[in-house]
Amino acid sequence: MGTLTDVFKALSDPTRRRILMLLRERDMNAGEIAGNFPVSKPSISHHLAQLKQAGLVSDTRQGQNIVYSLETTALQDLMTWVLSVRDGGDRKEAGDHV
Amino acid sequence: MGTLTDVFKALSDPTRRRILMLLRERDMNAGEIAGNFPVSKPSISHHLAQLKQAGLVSDTRQGQNIVYSLETTALQDLMTWVLSVRDGGDRKEAGDHV
Repeated sequence: MGTLTDVFKALSDPTRRRILMLLRERDMNAGEIAGNFPVSKPSISHHLAQLKQAGLVSDTRQGQNIVYSLETTALQDLMTWVLSVRDGGDRKEAGDHV
Repeated sequence: MGTLTDVFKALSDPTRRRILMLLRERDMNAGEIAGNFPVSKPSISHHLAQLKQAGLVSDTRQGQNIVYSLETTALQDLMTWVLSVRDGGDRKEAGDHV
């Protein structure tokens, strides 16, 4: 699981945000994901590594392939933080030092 | 109003996240905000400029001071995006090519 800083950094790139939108539909391997973007497969692999570090995707080996899945737990943590700023709430997070 | 990329970039720094937590309590000028951090006032001013560009804070002149306020609209946009990934929703974004 990445820190909140990792999560926000990972989401600050439009390609990475679109990868998550793709994985919302179904699990995919890197080649399938790359087929949706006009960028190189190594570039997509780098984006996937950042998403994985942030805990936003997980990867599972299936035979020859590594299949990527959306991990919604990190999104939930993000929501909790946003709600705590918007509505007040879990005050201890104000001192969150990641 | 900043783009979603601006918002995520602005939130990817722990000091900037903590500034938002402070402004959740009440409006403050840059000096008051800086008093809460072990960093220079120019550094805080730079963070405030990034938060303003992202639309996460607004500033208003009050006499000699510029007072900063939390803007929850950008947080709302962020929430909408996170929910659309987590729960499905605006499916057209999945195929939104560059």
